[in-house]
Amino acid sequence: MRFASFFDEVSRAFRDRTAFFKLVVIMAGASGGGLVAYADARSDLDLASSHGPTKKKVVILGTGWAGTSFLRNLDSSLYDVQVISPRNYFAFTPLLPSVTCGTVEARSIVEPIRNIMRKKKGEIKFWEAECFKIDPANKRVHCRYTTAPNSGWTDEFLVNYDYLVIAIGARANTFNIPGVEENCHFLKEVEDAQKIRRSVMDCFERASLPNLDEDERKKNLHFVIVGGGPTGVEFAAELHDFVSEDLSKLYPSVYGLVKIEVIEAGEHILTMFDKRISRFAEEKFQRDGIDLKTGFRVVKVSEKEITMASKSTGEFSEPYGMAVWSTGIGTRPVIVDFMKQIGQGNRRVLATDEWLRVCGCDGIYAVGDCASISQRKVVEDIAEIFRIADKDNSGTLTVKEIQDVLEDFCMRYPQLELYLKSKRMSSILELLKDSKGDATKEAIEVDIEEFRKALTDVDSQVKTLPATAQVAAQQGSYLARCFNKMKDTEEHPEGPLRFRGSGRHQFRPFRYKHFGQFAPLGGEQAAAQLPGDWISIGHSSQWLWYSVYASKQVSWRTRLLVISDWTKRFIFGRDSSCM
Amino acid sequence: MRFASFFDEVSRAFRDRTAFFKLVVIMAGASGGGLVAYADARSDLDLASSHGPTKKKVVILGTGWAGTSFLRNLDSSLYDVQVISPRNYFAFTPLLPSVTCGTVEARSIVEPIRNIMRKKKGEIKFWEAECFKIDPANKRVHCRYTTAPNSGWTDEFLVNYDYLVIAIGARANTFNIPGVEENCHFLKEVEDAQKIRRSVMDCFERASLPNLDEDERKKNLHFVIVGGGPTGVEFAAELHDFVSEDLSKLYPSVYGLVKIEVIEAGEHILTMFDKRISRFAEEKFQRDGIDLKTGFRVVKVSEKEITMASKSTGEFSEPYGMAVWSTGIGTRPVIVDFMKQIGQGNRRVLATDEWLRVCGCDGIYAVGDCASISQRKVVEDIAEIFRIADKDNSGTLTVKEIQDVLEDFCMRYPQLELYLKSKRMSSILELLKDSKGDATKEAIEVDIEEFRKALTDVDSQVKTLPATAQVAAQQGSYLARCFNKMKDTEEHPEGPLRFRGSGRHQFRPFRYKHFGQFAPLGGEQAAAQLPGDWISIGHSSQWLWYSVYASKQVSWRTRLLVISDWTKRFIFGRDSSCM
Ligand SMILES: Cc1cc2nc3c(=O)[nH]c(=O)nc-3n(C[C@H](O)[C@H](O)[C@H](O)COP(=O)(O)OP(=O)(O)OC[C@H]3O[C@@H](n4cnc5c(N)ncnc54)[C@H](O)[C@@H]3O)c2cc1C
Ligand SMILES: Cc1cc2nc3c(=O)[nH]c(=O)nc-3n(C[C@H](O)[C@H](O)[C@H](O)COP(=O)(O)OP(=O)(O)OC[C@H]3O[C@@H](n4cnc5c(N)ncnc54)[C@H](O)[C@@H]3O)c2cc1C
Repeated sequence: MRFASFFDEVSRAFRDRTAFFKLVVIMAGASGGGLVAYADARSDLDLASSHGPTKKKVVILGTGWAGTSFLRNLDSSLYDVQVISPRNYFAFTPLLPSVTCGTVEARSIVEPIRNIMRKKKGEIKFWEAECFKIDPANKRVHCRYTTAPNSGWTDEFLVNYDYLVIAIGARANTFNIPGVEENCHFLKEVEDAQKIRRSVMDCFERASLPNLDEDERKKNLHFVIVGGGPTGVEFAAELHDFVSEDLSKLYPSVYGLVKIEVIEAGEHILTMFDKRISRFAEEKFQRDGIDLKTGFRVVKVSEKEITMASKSTGEFSEPYGMAVWSTGIGTRPVIVDFMKQIGQGNRRVLATDEWLRVCGCDGIYAVGDCASISQRKVVEDIAEIFRIADKDNSGTLTVKEIQDVLEDFCMRYPQLELYLKSKRMSSILELLKDSKGDATKEAIEVDIEEFRKALTDVDSQVKTLPATAQVAAQQGSYLARCFNKMKDTEEHPEGPLRFRGSGRHQFRPFRYKHFGQFAPLGGEQAAAQLPGDWISIGHSSQWLWYSVYASKQVSWRTRLLVISDWTKRFIFGRDSSCM
Repeated sequence: MRFASFFDEVSRAFRDRTAFFKLVVIMAGASGGGLVAYADARSDLDLASSHGPTKKKVVILGTGWAGTSFLRNLDSSLYDVQVISPRNYFAFTPLLPSVTCGTVEARSIVEPIRNIMRKKKGEIKFWEAECFKIDPANKRVHCRYTTAPNSGWTDEFLVNYDYLVIAIGARANTFNIPGVEENCHFLKEVEDAQKIRRSVMDCFERASLPNLDEDERKKNLHFVIVGGGPTGVEFAAELHDFVSEDLSKLYPSVYGLVKIEVIEAGEHILTMFDKRISRFAEEKFQRDGIDLKTGFRVVKVSEKEITMASKSTGEFSEPYGMAVWSTGIGTRPVIVDFMKQIGQGNRRVLATDEWLRVCGCDGIYAVGDCASISQRKVVEDIAEIFRIADKDNSGTLTVKEIQDVLEDFCMRYPQLELYLKSKRMSSILELLKDSKGDATKEAIEVDIEEFRKALTDVDSQVKTLPATAQVAAQQGSYLARCFNKMKDTEEHPEGPLRFRGSGRHQFRPFRYKHFGQFAPLGGEQAAAQLPGDWISIGHSSQWLWYSVYASKQVSWRTRLLVISDWTKRFIFGRDSSCM
């Protein structure tokens, strides 16, 4: 350790002063050749890079799943890298609901971004600031540093880029329902989780005060969760466990008055999961005494009451103690503004192509929750595909001709593969055969109209990817790989044939690999939906799930912290201090 | 575990419904005799206590060192106990400076008060509220519940008492110096420490921003600590370690600009310690590059500058990044108001007698930092002491007469013992002999004037106790013991003779036992001042110190948490996330 830091010291001195010869002499005397060679090598590298052609500037906005995954996987010696984010840490969001009740501590699920930077080659810069304007015309971003609310200190600055990687995630969506912003908690950031934790304890302390009647106590202990998605459901489950396992002992006199209620506009909760999981969760909540209001829309939230409506009941209000709003995500203002500038003003979400390049710009990429891939449709390109495939210009495609472009075709239009799978067909030939009716496999030959007809429905399989950590992380590492191979692939492109245009695409398009999804339901119960329609429901351990999840993104440090938190909880229960 | 909670269930059902016979029958059938006997015994006890003479109401204000120590040691089955405090936890303040830099986590140094209550007999009530008025005339306190600043929820209520134990500690003292309240951090509460931690990180992030010149960076990294007492010194040391051990690696480009400065109005820091310790600390700070400004008074603090003055320099200002104010303690407003009501309006601190009873009230006690013991002077009582001792009314005291009251005399006026010790005398007889000059020990006989003359200087040894956790904790447990023995001692008083009045005092007066004081100075260095002028300086481990300190007040839970924090820091360093 000491030696390594001496090393660092020395090589820094080297870079700083470039007193190359002096140092070589001193060190050769002091420490022998090995060390010199090392320092030498380092300094050569540094010299080369600082005197050589200047590196391209890569600016990363955001330190969430997508941004951090990009940063981790990027060969940072190739670029001049700057990271901009209002948070100087990465947060492992799947454990956020556990922070709300102290099952896990906030600090255990965050990793300082500078820890990550330190382990990488080259000098990476981090600015703790928020980007409030993207200026694609001048290739720069406007940033603002904001300290704690009461300090009044703000500062703005500009950062130029050659490549911009937007990974700023999404904001909580209130659908502009009145009073939500002011009166509800959200669960997006670590601070949100900490606030919720304090608020839960406050509700219990408030309900325990001497001068309240029973109705007031009940009101204080009425916890409302709006939104039956995974986050809302998991928070409800965590809260239920916290109340029944820990708070029941500490607040015996009011514990019986607690009511946890989940309000969901749809007919069921967890609709993004398989029906069996959704049903299982609903039944478990019923057994736990969690009140499930499906088919209810919240229309207003005041300081004391929450107003909702359903078809059968009409509008009515309920007093509540604390409300958590978790109904999905929306686009951040800075992205809305950016979209207007680049002609995407009429879209709901920022669109990228399959290489994660923002449509309509140059050198700007977007990954994670802040953008959505707009998959090119087969129908739009059918004539071009046909033209390229029809090498002999015969006006028909033979089996051989089709097979020659098949790999590129599937790579460029992944919906084709999905479509075949959905039809339980093994290849495009089967599809064409099926569409033509009688012809035998070998003899098949299609003209453009037949080709178009056979592929009509293929685009129905275009799917938007879910806004999950898995997608964001995969996009980040995919993009980093592209950046790492930028030089190589200029000469040796590795992507599919360009059907519109000539040659090949520089890279393969992004492809998402789904590893399954997990829904913790409290009381050590959980449901998992794995690829290929596998479902697993029951008594599962969060440990297992976490170890799968954590495998890539999370450092050993945070892993140990989380495990030590679980151990603490196991031994001592959760902490109930209001802080 | 399950069995125990079934037990609790059952016995609660018992108490709630008093369906005594029904339950006995059911349970005898269901579970056999052992269980019934237990529930029976519990319920008898409960019945006795709720149907017997109503218990006296003890109200405790505050859950700090004094209040918690009182609560822990009180036999709570004897009283109807209510605890009122704005914090529902006890905080182990000696580790607060470590929280400012993340050496220890905030949650590891707090213990939920309800955890403590749960382990005690009888039903203790806790109200999370602040007492804003004490009303001794009507024997009640006015309380206010205040939630998080933005909720706007406040509620007031009244609590009656038979005995009131005031243990609300002190507030930070700004000496009304302009701008201190608004611009400085304090270090009294857990939240303060958390804010400081965030603020330190903010300063580093701010200093790293791209658009600053070197002066601005330096300003942001200028940390000012006002006050060279143990808290200020320890914070400075912690900050220095944090910066040099962790932040230097994460912020290599700005690390060199950091300046830590301690401003102290007196000539030295740590003046409450032995000179050798004070000197050692000053030298260590010098070696560490901590800037020590002794003999400087701060006269104003603005948002950007701190203004100070010394005899030699006159007034001047310095830009700063963050300032921590730690110059001692003052009286809380509610106590100031209370003092006015009970005729103590012209005093600086609330006075109690040697039994910790607030002077001028009935049934009100004060412990810890919020009060100070006003030790009765010997001179004031000299005639009465003489009268009581002179059993034969001869007008002179013989050796025998003196020896008969000696124990009571020393117990009532501890300054006597201290005075003898300071003069290196072994008994009062030596003192009298010394004062009379010639007489031999056996023949000694003194009249009132000789007695008065000999004792003239004794009161110079009256000392106010320091505002420390040790004093507060000892006062709390002393008072609890008195409460526990209240009944017994009414008939069999255990205190010294009443020199003014007749009979004996019900209890012995409070006596403080000093176990030494510890000053962590950073870098695993520490100084300890032990009783009897022992001093120990050098490379000490905080572990040892903590294990001594923690021995009584702290649960196994928090002890393990602290140790696990230290282990984490040892392995991974401190966390640098801004949160
Ligand atoms: C409570 C909760 C639980 C979840 N559980 C799961 C789960 O179990 N599994 C799963 O797959 N997914 C889960 N998700 C979803 C997952 O967290 C998101 O899909 C993922 O975080 C998206 O990654 P991202 O990088 O796009 O955005 P984020 O992770 O949100 O990161 C956005 C980053 O951008 C920064 N930023 C914001 N505004 C600006 C700005 N103006 N300028 C610069 N930077 C900015 C933010 O500070 C942040 O660092 C959960 C989400 C939540 C809220
Ligand atoms: C940073 C720091 C480090 C320290 N280190 C040491 C050390 O190493 N060794 C040592 O001996 N001492 C140390 N001390 C001093 C020690 O903490 C105090 O002497 C001790 O806390 C005093 O105990 P207390 O119970 O009187 O007050 P506190 O511990 O301050 O407790 C006061 C209690 O009253 C509550 N309260 C406040 N206002 C009201 C109200 N209006 N109504 C009801 N309740 C109220 C508070 O919430 C709190 O619970 C340190 C102090 C600090 C701040």
